[in-house]
Amino acid sequence: MSGVDYAGERAWLEQVLTRRIPLGAAMQLQILRLDARGIALRAPLEPNVNDKGTAFGGALASMMILAGWSLPRLLLRRAGSRAELVIGRSELVFLQPVRGVLVAECEWPPSADCSNFIRTLNERGRARIALRAWINGAEKPAATLDARYAALSTPP
Amino acid sequence: MSGVDYAGERAWLEQVLTRRIPLGAAMQLQILRLDARGIALRAPLEPNVNDKGTAFGGALASMMILAGWSLPRLLLRRAGSRAELVIGRSELVFLQPVRGVLVAECEWPPSADCSNFIRTLNERGRARIALRAWINGAEKPAATLDARYAALSTPP
Repeated sequence: MSGVDYAGERAWLEQVLTRRIPLGAAMQLQILRLDARGIALRAPLEPNVNDKGTAFGGALASMMILAGWSLPRLLLRRAGSRAELVIGRSELVFLQPVRGVLVAECEWPPSADCSNFIRTLNERGRARIALRAWINGAEKPAATLDARYAALSTPP
Repeated sequence: MSGVDYAGERAWLEQVLTRRIPLGAAMQLQILRLDARGIALRAPLEPNVNDKGTAFGGALASMMILAGWSLPRLLLRRAGSRAELVIGRSELVFLQPVRGVLVAECEWPPSADCSNFIRTLNERGRARIALRAWINGAEKPAATLDARYAALSTPP
């Protein structure tokens, strides 16, 4: 996707994630990367720690939910759509504890899926997209989220 | 379970959920109820809101994760165990938006399952327990979490 203003999108998205979602500010979320590959969110351990001194599962879940949500949210913004984007059924897997900085990543789906998402929304007033987000770990992901997001022209 | 000091457990648990897990404090979590039926956690909407003015999915997930975690954590405490309790594979379902106070609930498993959890942990150094937590909604739950928790005598 040439010609995409990633810097502008990043500035807009970061204020959504941290000003319109106060828990994002409490987690000290930042956008580490937004580019043609996808998105990476970063948060320090301290505000996201649990009683075991590792990252709280709810913080990992929240970061993956937001990393996954961000990409179709940007597709809607690029399409000038005012549809709402909500998360549906999701599978969460926690694989290993996170002892340092939390990094959640998600990659863009194939561009045909992105086009189809917007086309279906325009035609039917709703559309779904499935995404996998994950938390970086030592060699393999520390956690994964397989999530379905739904865009709805008429909010529930 | 007669003779359980629920008031004492509630005071102990509330400080774990809000002092040792800073995100619990950011969410303004409180224990609404802890009794022979189970646990209910409460949080106001304001710190847990999203860009749509409804509850952020990550806040709902966090509350359900903590409601579910609290019950086996109390079983470990009653047994004098120092095992760590971590969440494993879980299924999250978001059914309807939450527009007011967030309430997450979880019920005690059958007492045979509770006894078995502690006995297996003592025998094998690890044990699992499955729990369903949910967020209260208008007529049906607004969200559900089917989670597996693992107690580990030797932390990962």
